[in-house]
Amino acid sequence: MSANPFAAQREQLEDLCKRRFFYRPAFEIYGGTAGFWTYGPPGCAVKNNLIALWRKHFVIEEALMEIEDTNIMPHPVLKASGHVDRFSDFMVKDTKNPNLFYRADKLLEDHMEALMAAKGTTPEQREEYEKVKNMADGYSREELHGVLLKYAVKSPDTKNDLSEPYEFNLMFPTPIGPSGMMQGYLRPETAQGIFLNYPFCYEQNGGQMPFGVAQIGKAFRNEIAPRQGLLRQREFTQAEIEFFCKPGDKPHPKFAAVADLELRLFSSPQQLAAQPPSHRALGDAVGERLIANETLGYFIGRTFLLARRAGIRAEHIRFRQHLPTEMAHYACDCWDMEVEMSYGWVECVGIADRSAYDLTSHAGATGKELNAREKLETPITEEGFVLAKKASALIGKDFKAQAKPINAALAALASDALAALAAKAQADGSAEIEIDGGEKVSLTAAHLDGKVEAKTVHERVYVPNVVEPSFGIDRLLTAIYEHSYYVREGGAGDDEDKGKGSAVRAVLRLTPEVAPYKCVICPLDGRVAGAYGPVLERLRQRFAALGVQYKVDETSATVGKRYARNDELGIPFGVTVDFDTLDAKHALHDTVTLRERDSTEQLRLPVGEVADAISKVCFGSLDWAGLCAAYPTQDQAKAGSSAAGGDSISFLKAHQVEKLLNAAVNDAVDKRPADPIKFIAEQLLALPRIG
Amino acid sequence: MSANPFAAQREQLEDLCKRRFFYRPAFEIYGGTAGFWTYGPPGCAVKNNLIALWRKHFVIEEALMEIEDTNIMPHPVLKASGHVDRFSDFMVKDTKNPNLFYRADKLLEDHMEALMAAKGTTPEQREEYEKVKNMADGYSREELHGVLLKYAVKSPDTKNDLSEPYEFNLMFPTPIGPSGMMQGYLRPETAQGIFLNYPFCYEQNGGQMPFGVAQIGKAFRNEIAPRQGLLRQREFTQAEIEFFCKPGDKPHPKFAAVADLELRLFSSPQQLAAQPPSHRALGDAVGERLIANETLGYFIGRTFLLARRAGIRAEHIRFRQHLPTEMAHYACDCWDMEVEMSYGWVECVGIADRSAYDLTSHAGATGKELNAREKLETPITEEGFVLAKKASALIGKDFKAQAKPINAALAALASDALAALAAKAQADGSAEIEIDGGEKVSLTAAHLDGKVEAKTVHERVYVPNVVEPSFGIDRLLTAIYEHSYYVREGGAGDDEDKGKGSAVRAVLRLTPEVAPYKCVICPLDGRVAGAYGPVLERLRQRFAALGVQYKVDETSATVGKRYARNDELGIPFGVTVDFDTLDAKHALHDTVTLRERDSTEQLRLPVGEVADAISKVCFGSLDWAGLCAAYPTQDQAKAGSSAAGGDSISFLKAHQVEKLLNAAVNDAVDKRPADPIKFIAEQLLALPRIG
Repeated sequence: MSANPFAAQREQLEDLCKRRFFYRPAFEIYGGTAGFWTYGPPGCAVKNNLIALWRKHFVIEEALMEIEDTNIMPHPVLKASGHVDRFSDFMVKDTKNPNLFYRADKLLEDHMEALMAAKGTTPEQREEYEKVKNMADGYSREELHGVLLKYAVKSPDTKNDLSEPYEFNLMFPTPIGPSGMMQGYLRPETAQGIFLNYPFCYEQNGGQMPFGVAQIGKAFRNEIAPRQGLLRQREFTQAEIEFFCKPGDKPHPKFAAVADLELRLFSSPQQLAAQPPSHRALGDAVGERLIANETLGYFIGRTFLLARRAGIRAEHIRFRQHLPTEMAHYACDCWDMEVEMSYGWVECVGIADRSAYDLTSHAGATGKELNAREKLETPITEEGFVLAKKASALIGKDFKAQAKPINAALAALASDALAALAAKAQADGSAEIEIDGGEKVSLTAAHLDGKVEAKTVHERVYVPNVVEPSFGIDRLLTAIYEHSYYVREGGAGDDEDKGKGSAVRAVLRLTPEVAPYKCVICPLDGRVAGAYGPVLERLRQRFAALGVQYKVDETSATVGKRYARNDELGIPFGVTVDFDTLDAKHALHDTVTLRERDSTEQLRLPVGEVADAISKVCFGSLDWAGLCAAYPTQDQAKAGSSAAGGDSISFLKAHQVEKLLNAAVNDAVDKRPADPIKFIAEQLLALPRIG
Repeated sequence: MSANPFAAQREQLEDLCKRRFFYRPAFEIYGGTAGFWTYGPPGCAVKNNLIALWRKHFVIEEALMEIEDTNIMPHPVLKASGHVDRFSDFMVKDTKNPNLFYRADKLLEDHMEALMAAKGTTPEQREEYEKVKNMADGYSREELHGVLLKYAVKSPDTKNDLSEPYEFNLMFPTPIGPSGMMQGYLRPETAQGIFLNYPFCYEQNGGQMPFGVAQIGKAFRNEIAPRQGLLRQREFTQAEIEFFCKPGDKPHPKFAAVADLELRLFSSPQQLAAQPPSHRALGDAVGERLIANETLGYFIGRTFLLARRAGIRAEHIRFRQHLPTEMAHYACDCWDMEVEMSYGWVECVGIADRSAYDLTSHAGATGKELNAREKLETPITEEGFVLAKKASALIGKDFKAQAKPINAALAALASDALAALAAKAQADGSAEIEIDGGEKVSLTAAHLDGKVEAKTVHERVYVPNVVEPSFGIDRLLTAIYEHSYYVREGGAGDDEDKGKGSAVRAVLRLTPEVAPYKCVICPLDGRVAGAYGPVLERLRQRFAALGVQYKVDETSATVGKRYARNDELGIPFGVTVDFDTLDAKHALHDTVTLRERDSTEQLRLPVGEVADAISKVCFGSLDWAGLCAAYPTQDQAKAGSSAAGGDSISFLKAHQVEKLLNAAVNDAVDKRPADPIKFIAEQLLALPRIG
């Protein structure tokens, strides 16, 4: 087992995150409450930027429908989804101190890890312990009880015996309305809100399949023992997609775009045999059915691309297949994107094929039709349950005016459902059907007389399957911070204080897209304070117009110290307004220094262009190398300035040419000359020379 | 009273919003639960866009710190804020049917309105009834009981007598943790999370005042009788700002930027005298102290500008001052931005000066210092309570090792607090003080002996005041929809079906910035299907790269019908890919039609430029008139096409000149010629002619 590269830095990083208020425990002035965290200004900005990136990557690029459902949901919804009955963890109590609770599976995992690490453990034992650890959250209550006894697991705080495991439902309950009689819960996942609105989204999509629906929002789990920072919160943010598709092969039209991605896959058989994961091309893994289908594979690939784009390092990403014991009984395949961090490999995204389970459950609970209908180009003949003519006649006779809605309700049933209804009437003497308006009508076996026979079918009615990528936003944030953190050796190249002390020069290598502020503006100390105000105002206005978040650091610290302080915030660019900027007689007048965080390279740009240049680099239409090609370095510019009009300076002036060019083009638009190129060239030549 | 211009359209608009799934009742397949709504794809997109606009307008332009605190908060926080004791409405029950609950103040308001509208009501009576109605939510329990009896208000459903009013707390309670012993609530407002984090934000701001902190998120109120669509939800979205500033005049450095705004102000005296509101310049209203201070006035102005930018019509906006009876006892002034909609004038934003109330409450409950400290440039002498020397000596003698932390704790107290402590010790014989580490120490009157005398002060310590603009996002959305809805007379100009029927041609005039999709792409029917795919893909990729949401309407309906359908969604632009676009031999090859929703004007643009043009118009760097100046109309382009190379077409070709220009400029950047203008002009002249 190779050493975890992130464990050693955790304490420093956590200190940074608290000190600079990326996040800290919520209600801290009240002493805090486990499992609740507050995102401070930079942390909130990074989170918003990650969500904006997710929206662009999925909602816009995959043309998903995004909805917003409620946090509070009534009992029947979560009863049907299975959460009321099964959304629970096993707890154990200390038998002599019933105020000490533990989550049984986590206790078992910790215990197995300790055994694996113990001196004198044989390789065979280690393999056994690892298997038990991997199975920990898949055991039934009885199995868990047996395993805890077998390995003599005790209360970690007191070494007392533990109680038998018992279930604790993780949903937060709350009553709805003034009577207090309607039970509600805070949603344990955002997914259920999507299932409830399937028919309305299907309608908005013009009845076409497949399509995906997304929801981003809070979810709530009343964790027994929250720990590990942002990883296990009682209130956290999910971004979930339900991609509704036809059961069967589940091909995806854009699969080819991700087929060549090489991913580290950790299959269920590999885990059970305690073998390591292996690198596979996504196309091969789907081709061999290691991954169940193209749609599942497509979202695995897109998830990997999102993580990389957000700044999570590819070499610390793996996709782990669920073991048969941990997979929900209805899922046909499920892969977690796990990211290596200081806490080990952590599940950040789950990508599951949930088949038709959820829609079927809600259809059953509500009696509503949650189907898709596909018109067949050529009608086909198939076996199905068909009502006998005399049965219809009997309905007409017995129900009179109600016969029509009854027949419509029967016609809307799928063949299987109709056969089941008839069988029930046969067995129980009668069976109920709900007709339009909600009234229930009881039918006898004679009303439902019929048999299986060949019939012509013009459309296929089916319950859509779903592929569900489910993102834990807060866990991705933890991965981003851990993978971005580094300590600059010996201070930055631009650090005036370098070598003067041993202070840690921490940097967050956040990508410009997720960085909380894109730029810090640092005026050099007050030498030319009067002229500085208008320059700052010009920069402020342009950043605000572009919607680019920035910070101003007007403290009197050295610029090196200020850079170091803002490196901690992950700010990719620094703009220094110096004496040369403000001195109208100087060759570098009206230009500023632009410094890049990681390379510490510095360029010299006109004040009027710097905000646009930063915006372009942050939102992807240009990169730092492109900027370096377009502008002189600080050293080149300074050299040019001392050489009074050298190459770089004349180039800089050339850059102001753009305004003149635009004027000439606009003139061409107005006058519409026959040969616009020639017209523009002539306009330019006619200008007074600026060389 | 002038007729409400929005009431007549409400039913049609609500139908549209449900039919196109802007929003609909939540859990609808389960029969719904009052007060909960789901935002569907276009509604969710409009909401996200409004929030993005709010962030740009406030967080970026005002340089606020945005934080994200939790939805669930523990009991002590909401006890200190006053919500546990006072966040309640008065309910009344039907005395004979205790399952019928009513909110007493709303019942009274409805009753007064009915009396005002009744035949035979005299002007004097009407004035009396209106005053009672305006006071309805300001009465105490006893007053309310008296008024309900005086006007003989009965159960509206049964006409039975009503119970006495009783309080119902509107917070949703939920237990935290597995023991069930820790009481939590869903937050009733996002503001409290900001107050809790004041000291950490103050620290991040380098101890400088003033500064503002924002939070956007859900808030929860267990309404007794939710009604009026999105206006009174049990779960809703707030965007709140706490602007922390020094007590006193509260000047704002940017006030001049809003001083000239003419707003409709409805002052408290005007309301009490049943007079109409009046138009005032914001600068005058603050100058005369009608609005308490510049900071309050500044945020009133910025709020108005946001509303207008979001598409709320200025002539239906007014700012109503709270009556003394409705204002919280700690607030010194409060104004609501009310918007006229079909439900009447509705509070959408509250802008209050909450003084130091909240920070003082939380400081009292936690014993934490929630102060600001201002170093005085020159120390001043002022009267203050000073401990006698012998008192300090006594502390040293009595407490030994503890004397130092006790003295530190006493020194940290403001003069007033120290005097109060001494007075308490005098009165009760002793008083407690918390020292570092949380231990409480009891001091006697002798330990706290001292008197008021002149002393030299080097810094000012104060509890910051807050000005709080609090936005109800869902109410703003309702206003946006109601103010955007109109019915196109006789069909659109481009509507092939116009005059064929009486179908309502509804349009949402959403501003491009908040519109759910910025563009709909409509291919004309399948005539040239083969060539269409690549054009669509080019458009898709460019829209996705720009982060611009778009829709594709590939149905076979006439283009007029498709425009009508997408006008309902408020989509500002339509792009039509037609035969001319796809025919390589045609003069209009590779150009598309761009249609603007409200004017129905149509321009002809190159495929490669249309996404960028739309993005610029939607995000403010260009307007429709600017686009019209840059591109030919559809008619001009068609005419040019038939004239084979006429003026408009040569202009279109001239537009492709930009690429050539860019190439010449890049060449200049590489080669850095002495006279770049001349160099570029010569490059252009050397190009092969395209005329």
